[in-house]
Amino acid sequence: MGKIVCAGLGPGDPDLISVRADRAIRGAAQIAYFRKKGRAGQARRIVAEMLAPGVVEHAMEYPVTTEIPFASPEYNRLLSAFYDDWTRRLAELARASDVVVLCEGDPLFYGSFMHLHARLQGVVEVEVIPGIPGMTGCWNAIGQPMTWGDDAMTVLMGTLSEPELTRHMQAAEALVVMKTGRNLPKIARALTAAGRLADAWLVERGTMPNQRVTPLAQADLEACPYFATVLVHGNGRRPIADSAADAAE
Amino acid sequence: MGKIVCAGLGPGDPDLISVRADRAIRGAAQIAYFRKKGRAGQARRIVAEMLAPGVVEHAMEYPVTTEIPFASPEYNRLLSAFYDDWTRRLAELARASDVVVLCEGDPLFYGSFMHLHARLQGVVEVEVIPGIPGMTGCWNAIGQPMTWGDDAMTVLMGTLSEPELTRHMQAAEALVVMKTGRNLPKIARALTAAGRLADAWLVERGTMPNQRVTPLAQADLEACPYFATVLVHGNGRRPIADSAADAAE
Ligand SMILES: C[S@@+](CC[C@H](N)C(=O)[O-])C[C@H]1O[C@@H](n2cnc3c(N)ncnc32)[C@H](O)[C@@H]1O
Ligand SMILES: C[S@@+](CC[C@H](N)C(=O)[O-])C[C@H]1O[C@@H](n2cnc3c(N)ncnc32)[C@H](O)[C@@H]1O
Repeated sequence: MGKIVCAGLGPGDPDLISVRADRAIRGAAQIAYFRKKGRAGQARRIVAEMLAPGVVEHAMEYPVTTEIPFASPEYNRLLSAFYDDWTRRLAELARASDVVVLCEGDPLFYGSFMHLHARLQGVVEVEVIPGIPGMTGCWNAIGQPMTWGDDAMTVLMGTLSEPELTRHMQAAEALVVMKTGRNLPKIARALTAAGRLADAWLVERGTMPNQRVTPLAQADLEACPYFATVLVHGNGRRPIADSAADAAE
Repeated sequence: MGKIVCAGLGPGDPDLISVRADRAIRGAAQIAYFRKKGRAGQARRIVAEMLAPGVVEHAMEYPVTTEIPFASPEYNRLLSAFYDDWTRRLAELARASDVVVLCEGDPLFYGSFMHLHARLQGVVEVEVIPGIPGMTGCWNAIGQPMTWGDDAMTVLMGTLSEPELTRHMQAAEALVVMKTGRNLPKIARALTAAGRLADAWLVERGTMPNQRVTPLAQADLEACPYFATVLVHGNGRRPIADSAADAAE
C-alpha cells in the first residue's frame, strides 16, 4: 500500500522547489494535479522538465471555478462531491504506488489540496512537503524586504467584501492580497480608502518566466491574471546610522 | 569581482532548502552567517552536512542581542555600526569569490540579512534566494491547514505591546506570533484577552530534530526558546458534504 505525498511546488520557478519535493517529483511513478477544464494547469507546467519517463498522470479537473458564486449551495455541492470522488480515486490509486499530488506554493496555505487532506485522514497515509508560499516568491520578485522590526503583516483574500478589505488594510502595516484577478478593481478601491494605494505593488506570475512587477497605481486593473498578488511593504523599526537617526527624529 | 548570495535556509530541516539554495551552499568557497557570541549559530547548524571541504567561514557575531532595549539609541548605534562594518567586510571578501550568506527562513521576511541588503545596494551585486518561512514549517509541523476560504491571516511579533497584540488578535482569523521566547507570557495574556488561547499552538524548533508541538494552554510559558512560533488556525469557508453542511447551519 503506497501513500499520498503532496509536494509543495513553491511560487513557480522549479529551482525554488525544496530538495525533498524535487526528489519526490522526479521519482514519482504517478502524479496528480488540479486544473481548470481545458487548461494545461499551472502545477503541471512547473514540473514539466522534471517528470520521469512513463509517469502516469491524473488531472483532477474542477467541475466549476468562477462560473457560480463560492457561497452558493450549488457550488458547495459540486466541489464537495468532486473532492469526495478524488479522495476515493487517490486512495485506490495508492494501492499500486505512492501518488505525488502537486500543489502550488505551500499546500497547507489556502491550497486546494487541503480539501483532500481533510478527507484522506484515516483512509490512506498522507505526507505533506512544505513549499515556499507564492507571496514569498512575490516579495522576492520585487526585491525589497517585506517586513521590519515589529511590523504586523496581514494576508487577505481579494474575494472579501470591500468594507472588510478596507478595515483589515487600515489595521495592518505590511499587506498581502491574494486571489486578485477580477477582484483587482475592488482591491484597489479598498487600498485607496485605507490610504495605501501609492505604496502597493502588483506582482503577476512571480518567479515564473513571464513575471511582471508593477506599481499598482500604474497597473491595468481590468487585465489581472489568476497568479497575481498585491503587496504593500512594512516600514518598521531598524538600526540606522546616527546621522540618519537624527534626521528621522 | 564576486557577488553576495543570500541563501534562504527554510525552517530548519536541510531537506526543505530550495534546489537553488542547496546548490549555492554546497558550491560555496566562502560562507557568512549571523550568530550570538559564544553560540554555534542556528544557520550554521542547518548546513553542517552540506559544506564543501575547505570552505572559508565568516561568523558575524551580534555585538548585543537582548541585553539592552531594541528601541534605545545605544542599541541602534551598536547594531548600525555592526551592519556597516560587515557591509564593508563582505564587499571586500567578495573580491575573491562569491560569499554565500546564510539566513533562516526567507531572507526578506523579518531577517537580519535585510540590514546588510539595504547597505549593500550599489556597493556589490546581491542575489537573494527565497526560502520557506519559519512559520510555514511550523504549520506543517502541526499538520493542519492554516487558512481556508476567505480567512485573513495576521503575522505578529511578540515584541509588540500587550494592547497592540490584543487589538490585532481580535481583528484576524488565522494568527502567527513570532519572536516568542521571553515574550510568551505576554502573548498568552493577549490571546486570552482576544478569546483565542484555547485554539493556539506552540511550535518549538519546527522541522528541526528536537521539534515540539504543544497546545499553548498546556505549554510552560517560562521556558520558551528563540525558535518558537505561536499559531492559531483559520476556520473559513470550505466545501463540505451536504449532511455536514446541514448540520453546520
Ligand atoms: C488558491 S491560492 C494558493 C496559494 C498557494 N497554496 C500558496 O502557498 O501560495 C492562489 C493565489 O495565490 C497567489 N499566488 C500563488 N503563486 C503566485 C505567484 N507565483 N505569483 C503571484 N501570485 C501567486 C495568487 O494570488 C493566487 O490567486
Ligand atoms: C528574526 S525572525 C526570522 C524569520 C525568518 N527570516 C523566517 O522567514 O522565518 C525569527 C523568528 O522566526 C520564528 N521561527 C523561525 N524559524 C522557526 C522554526 N523553525 N520554528 C519555530 N519558529 C521559527 C521564531 O519565532 C523566531 O523568533
